[in-house]
Amino acid sequence: MTSRRPSIGVFDSGFGGLTVLKALLELVPDADYVYFGDTARLPYGSKSVETVARYAVQSAHYLEKQEADLLVIACNTATALAFEQITAAAHVPVVGVVEPGADAAASASRNHKVVVIGTQATVGSHAYKKALEARGLAAREKACPLLVPLVEEGWVEHPVTEEIARIYLNEGFDDGFSDADVLLLGCTHYPLLKPLLRRVAPAPASIVDSAESTARAVAPRMQQLLGESRAEQRRAVPRLKFFATDSVEKFKLLGKRFLGHPIEDVRHVDLQE
Amino acid sequence: MTSRRPSIGVFDSGFGGLTVLKALLELVPDADYVYFGDTARLPYGSKSVETVARYAVQSAHYLEKQEADLLVIACNTATALAFEQITAAAHVPVVGVVEPGADAAASASRNHKVVVIGTQATVGSHAYKKALEARGLAAREKACPLLVPLVEEGWVEHPVTEEIARIYLNEGFDDGFSDADVLLLGCTHYPLLKPLLRRVAPAPASIVDSAESTARAVAPRMQQLLGESRAEQRRAVPRLKFFATDSVEKFKLLGKRFLGHPIEDVRHVDLQE
Repeated sequence: MTSRRPSIGVFDSGFGGLTVLKALLELVPDADYVYFGDTARLPYGSKSVETVARYAVQSAHYLEKQEADLLVIACNTATALAFEQITAAAHVPVVGVVEPGADAAASASRNHKVVVIGTQATVGSHAYKKALEARGLAAREKACPLLVPLVEEGWVEHPVTEEIARIYLNEGFDDGFSDADVLLLGCTHYPLLKPLLRRVAPAPASIVDSAESTARAVAPRMQQLLGESRAEQRRAVPRLKFFATDSVEKFKLLGKRFLGHPIEDVRHVDLQE
Repeated sequence: MTSRRPSIGVFDSGFGGLTVLKALLELVPDADYVYFGDTARLPYGSKSVETVARYAVQSAHYLEKQEADLLVIACNTATALAFEQITAAAHVPVVGVVEPGADAAASASRNHKVVVIGTQATVGSHAYKKALEARGLAAREKACPLLVPLVEEGWVEHPVTEEIARIYLNEGFDDGFSDADVLLLGCTHYPLLKPLLRRVAPAPASIVDSAESTARAVAPRMQQLLGESRAEQRRAVPRLKFFATDSVEKFKLLGKRFLGHPIEDVRHVDLQE
């Protein structure tokens, strides 16, 4: 019997997607994982649709070459701006973070009002607004461009970060959205700020994390693939492989903050430049 | 007579180099300018030597194709990490920002102690420390990774920016450098923060801006080239051409904050990806 365990390809512009991988490892431990971080060209959040789509499709193809059976676009900006292009270019099923996030927000909201925070590019695409409105919810989107650099600086519990988050959320929960009862984290860096955002967000608002909801959306998709693998394979510990377009050392250093444990097997990749 | 005016190619990862261009336009108005912003792959400041060198050399070649007679690396990270690679790859003279900045700091300092602020990559390279020590000055380098995103968010006079700058400068002017008498701005985004930094830095410290000092270093280099051009050509208004690897609209929008006046002629470029 040489049949291999199913492999999930997880893609992000950098490190944020590791929060999705972390949730996946908890919910879908029966698979192997290949993670691709396009760290040489990060961040995507301040870039145009054309640039993000080109980079994301290259990254998706790279994961397919690594024999991924399913692709998870663990990047809100790439999902928001380029989900259709990635799906069209890929030969395996693709799961993004926007639809699962919108589903989770719809389940959590009672008054159908959601505040979404994300990068400039994600907010500019209105992907969340469209997905939420399609589910009968009203959405207020607020770009928070400083939160990613603050997380990458490691200031996840810093008073300055709290002040900046308060400024952003005050502008989000405003103009008819002061009673919104869901704060949707539309960026995979933001789960690291959850305790701080919990203190700053209005008390009645629940926080929905698109990393967790994406992992929950992947679980049933894996059932079919898992059905084909043998029982002893299913019990094995997931194998993890990491690829990054910038420094491997930096990936190990920053990555462990997002994944929550040390990262070993990282390889450097050049995307034909 | 078809001899053309000399053309200066100015290169940066994004918008910061426009502060150098602004200084050049004041000091060297007798030339034409071609500006290249590698905005699709910005920021360079958090990336590795190899990645920055590859991107910078591609950008330098692009400017040579645009017939630049002299290249100005208006990016501290690219100069600090890849000046030798760029110089080796270029066929025209190259001026970076580090040496002129170090010269200006050496002239301004009386007690030979300088605090340099810059990106993670610039500080990690110790290019300023080496350049300053070669001039007999002691240098304390402090990475300030949040200042670039704060400038790009437009928060150049925001209380939060002042608080963050105070945290960074307190760490810079510490441990034997509390009496440093020069604060060297080792990033071309920082000139926009000059009024704020003036309030936050210790009163006796003068602020040296590598954008201005680089323009002063370019001026004599242009004399020879200018000598060959006709008097009426020298009197003409500089022609400006801009190239960007990400969105042209975004370049116009953000760029005018750095240049201080509207930007018209911007073209989009793909660097063979």
